[in-house]
Order: sequence, then structure tokens, then C-alpha cells
Amino acid sequence: MTEEIAVIPGDGIGQEVVPVAVSVLDEVGDFAFTEYDAGDRVQEETGEPLPEETKRAAETSDATLFGAAGESAADVILPLRSAVGSFANVRPARAYPGIDALHPDADLVFVRENTEGVYAGIESDLTDEVRTLTRVITEPASRRIAEFGFDYAAEHDYDVTVAHKANVMARTDGLFVETAGQVADEHGADHETQLMDALATDLVMNPADYGVVICPNLAGDVLSDLAAGLVGGLGLLPSANIGPERALFEPVHGSAPDIAGKGIANPIATVLSAAMCCEFLERADEAERIRTAVMEVLADGPHTPDLGGEATTEEIESALLARL
Amino acid sequence: MTEEIAVIPGDGIGQEVVPVAVSVLDEVGDFAFTEYDAGDRVQEETGEPLPEETKRAAETSDATLFGAAGESAADVILPLRSAVGSFANVRPARAYPGIDALHPDADLVFVRENTEGVYAGIESDLTDEVRTLTRVITEPASRRIAEFGFDYAAEHDYDVTVAHKANVMARTDGLFVETAGQVADEHGADHETQLMDALATDLVMNPADYGVVICPNLAGDVLSDLAAGLVGGLGLLPSANIGPERALFEPVHGSAPDIAGKGIANPIATVLSAAMCCEFLERADEAERIRTAVMEVLADGPHTPDLGGEATTEEIESALLARL
Ligand SMILES: CC(C)[C@H](C(=O)O)[C@@H](O)C(=O)O
Ligand SMILES: CC(C)[C@H](C(=O)O)[C@@H](O)C(=O)O
Repeated sequence: MTEEIAVIPGDGIGQEVVPVAVSVLDEVGDFAFTEYDAGDRVQEETGEPLPEETKRAAETSDATLFGAAGESAADVILPLRSAVGSFANVRPARAYPGIDALHPDADLVFVRENTEGVYAGIESDLTDEVRTLTRVITEPASRRIAEFGFDYAAEHDYDVTVAHKANVMARTDGLFVETAGQVADEHGADHETQLMDALATDLVMNPADYGVVICPNLAGDVLSDLAAGLVGGLGLLPSANIGPERALFEPVHGSAPDIAGKGIANPIATVLSAAMCCEFLERADEAERIRTAVMEVLADGPHTPDLGGEATTEEIESALLARL
Repeated sequence: MTEEIAVIPGDGIGQEVVPVAVSVLDEVGDFAFTEYDAGDRVQEETGEPLPEETKRAAETSDATLFGAAGESAADVILPLRSAVGSFANVRPARAYPGIDALHPDADLVFVRENTEGVYAGIESDLTDEVRTLTRVITEPASRRIAEFGFDYAAEHDYDVTVAHKANVMARTDGLFVETAGQVADEHGADHETQLMDALATDLVMNPADYGVVICPNLAGDVLSDLAAGLVGGLGLLPSANIGPERALFEPVHGSAPDIAGKGIANPIATVLSAAMCCEFLERADEAERIRTAVMEVLADGPHTPDLGGEATTEEIESALLARL
């Protein structure tokens, strides 16, 4: 079967790294790619950062590969995540041999709730001077992300930590933690809970003590970016936005306007996102082949400037293809 | 003039570290100390973690020195912060010669909004399964923290970064960022704004690029704890909760039940909080003397176990007093 993959390079380095991931996927498997527009460029032309056609492609393709968007990022990526019905944002952050990392032993996977929290998007201007945002936590979404997280941890043999701030957000994060506890019981699984502030300290100092970290939406956003700093930077972090039937894959980094167009963007995060895409499509061998090639290139070089090297995006692409 | 300092050791290692700070203050200056109860222990006895008398002491003393509280922490520290009218939580995080740090060049000061954001405390159970929290951002509080932050940065010669998540929380964090921008203009000061997730990565990798970081309440909580990890741990981070007339000083760490009662708690964060207290009381010389003693002890030892040493709290106290 040939799976249909919607490809949305977007803005900035998205245009440079996504084609590398497409080449790599094309090399290992039989996929049908169709490219779609989104981001600042299309917004300038049409007034809309996310064309209806692009959204529909995400809703109907077997999987979607996204690069990055600039100023319009939130207006592109949040609707795209919901277009694939994503409830779980999975963000592995691990160190690799050959890459300078503050913590060469870090091997973390953030499992981030992907539909609610402060991302529910309900804000009000009560007066000129007073504005509010309604943070939403529900039992079904908390249950779904906990189930996903415990399943993932069992399958990949990780410990589970549940991040929260229930000492201040007693009812909302209280529900998140309580629900995770019930799911742990149902799964007969061990887990720890940890305040997200204390967890931030401890992740920086002792990341090897952690495995899967199940997080409310914004906590997952911040803690996974923190973890990127531990393993060598955002250029290495892939992510999967998983829904019940479809999913969207994207590097954790943004459009990096400072280096866009220079041909030196690191495509590894996007290529690793493509590997997660293969896994989602139950093409485990293809996923494994991509990961092995990535690990070899990271170990032996070449490396892009963000990793201390001098290679171009094209040289990384060639190095990867040569290993496949 | 003899200033009145309310002393609230609280729970766990609060009972061990606060007396050290009191000895140090007593050595350098002329203060009148009165001790008050708060925390889990008094809650067990009376049902209330924060006795009326303790709250009133914070409301009326020239300054308050707080240690830590256990499970009841939020119900103790949040009312105490508001009892002193605190709007700014100041959290310096710097590396010290003699202490292993991931980033020996880090010298950061988090200026955290201390009254609103998700700490406004408004939660609702809409149904059994749906709960909300109302996050509040106001112009006056945003202005007050920005003014404090820019003044502090000018006085101590730091650059300013404003942390936010306005791409998702467009109206609320939008107001926070916009107000900070107006204050910057009024002060004729430069500043940068940065998304808190990208900032988390960059603080972990390049903390020396930052100085004062002005933050909404929860962002300040998490990012300052992250920074603790960069400089050697929470045992080194003091904080000041500043109000227009009064202030409360406390270590950033908690009650550390795992090591409480063993006599090995690190008192440095609390002693540095006492130095911030002297500064607030316009006793700059006393503040300087305490900081110099701390830096000498950190450079030469002894060190408590959290810093890789074997010293007891008492040995640190003696070493500090010997230098004063
Ligand atoms: C662009 C933004 C809306 C997004 C988020 O906050 O989820 C980004 O930071 C990310 O983590 O992918
Ligand atoms: C105990 C808790 C309410 C508190 C906070 O979130 O402010 C603590 O984490 C801190 O940072 O002092």
C-alpha cells in the first residue's frame, strides 16, 4: 500500500529541511507525497496563513509532514494539530554519541496533552486593563493522554513522571494528576508525580533519572524545549502529533529566520520526525533504517553549524542518503 | 534604628536553615527578631497552616524571613506574599567560583510578577469532567513589574528580556509584553522579548546571554527553577518578595522532607535571602559583608552534600560566622 503524505514545508528553514525528510522517506519506502502551502508567505498573498486546501489535506492524508511557520506559527500549527485529531504530542529528547550535550545520558520522551490547558484559546478583555484566559482541563483529555503515556512507556520501557502544578492549580491540575493516578492503577504501572518547577531544576541536573514525562499542554511545551537544551539543541528534536487515525510530524524547532535561506539548517529533527511517521504508519523497518542512518551521521559527521560543524543542509542530505 | 524582622522557619529544613540566617544577620547588624509558626506542623495542631498572628506579623514587621513549608506550602507562602503587599518576586541565579555548575558564567535575575497570572486562584468545576482556571493579566500589575524590572536592570547593569507566550495567549501575554514595551520606551531602555519555550532552550544552552528576565508569574516560577539547575541547584537561590513598604525573603527551595532533620541542609540560599533583606532595609554594607562571607565559603568550602561536600549545616554556619 502506498500511503499518502501531505507535505507542508511552511516558512523559513521549513523550506530547507522538509525536502530532506521527503528524500529520505522516498529512499526507504513507497509513499505518495503532495505538497501544500501554509505560513507567513501564503498569508501575505492571500490574507490567510492556513489555506482550506492544506487543512483538508491534513484531515484526509494518512500522515502529514510539517516544517515550520514564522509569525503565523500558532495560526498554522494549532489548527493543523486539530485537523489530524491529535491529542498527544510526543517529543523524544535524547543525546547522541558524537554530539556535544550537557547530559550525554539524557533519554527523555515528553508526552504532551495536545488539545486543552491554556491552548483552549478562550481569552476575554474584561476592561481596558484586565484580561483573562480560561485554562481548561477535562477528565477525558487527561485520561486519554495518560493512557497514551503509560502505553508508550510500557512499550518502550521507560519510567513515568507526571508533571503538574497542582499546588497552585488545585482543581485543574489536580484533575490531571488524579486521572493519571487512576490510569496508572488500571495499568498496574508505577509512576511519580512532580511539580513542574522542581522538575525543571531536576531535569537540568539529573535528566537520566527520567523517562516518559506526561505533561499538561504548556508544561510539555516548555519542559521539552528545556530538554532540547540538554541534548544539543532544537535541531535534534522531532515530534509527533498523534490522533486516533491520523498524525502530523514536525521538528520541535521553528522557522529560524536568522539562518533561513543560507543552506545551513539542520534537517535532523525533521528527518527524525519522518522516522516517527514511519513508525506511526507501522513501517517499523523503515523507521529503524532512518534512525540508524541519522545516528551514524551524528556519530561520524558531517554536522551543521548548530552542532558545531560546517556542513550544509545538502551535505547532511547526501550523507544520510549514502547510508540508506 | 532596630528593624523588626518576623522569622518564620516553617517545616522541614526551614527549621534548620533559617536559624543560620538569623545568626548571620545578628552578627552583622542590629535587628529585633520574633519567631512565628506556619506550615504543616501547625496545621496538624490547629487545622490552619497560617496562624492569624503570623500573617499579622508579616503585615506589620519591617521585613519577614521565611524558610519553607511542606504540603501546605501554597496556603502559607501565597498569603504571606500578599501580606507584605509583594508584587515582585526577585530571584537571582548565579554561578559561584568553587561550585560545580553546568554554566559557570551564568548570572541571571528573574523578576517575576507576583500577584496574578494563574495564581489569581479562580478555579471552577463546570461539570464532573470539566474544570477551568481563570488566568488574569492586568495592565497595572504588568506595568508595575516591568517598571521594577527595568529599574533593577539599570541599577545593576543587566540587559532585559521579557518572557511570554503571546503567540498562544495573545490577549493576556500580549498585554504583558505590550506594557513592558511601553515601560521600556518610557525608560529609554533596550529590551528583547522571547517566547518562554524558546527561552527555556536558550537559558539551558547560553545563559550568559541573559541578565534580568521579566516574567509572568508561572513562567518566572519555572524558569527560575530551571536556572537553579544551571548554577548548582536550589540550595544556592535566594529570593525577595518585594512590596511597596515591606518585603518577605525566602530561599527558592522547599522543605526537602528527604533530608530534613539530618543536619545537612544547605543554608546558603536562606543566608543570601538575608543579604537581600539587608539590601531592602538599606543596609548595603551588611548585605555586602554577608555576600562576601558566602562567596568565600563557597570558594574555599566547606560544602554541604547537595554541593558535593560532606559538611553539616552547623559547619557552614561556623564557617560563615568565622568570616564575618
Ligand atoms: C508555535 C506554537 C503555537 C507551538 C506551541 O506552543 O505548541 C510551538 O511552540 C511548539 O511547541 O510546537
Ligand atoms: C509553593 C508554591 C506555591 C511556590 C510558587 O509556585 O510560587 C513555589 O514553587 C515558589 O516558587 O516559591
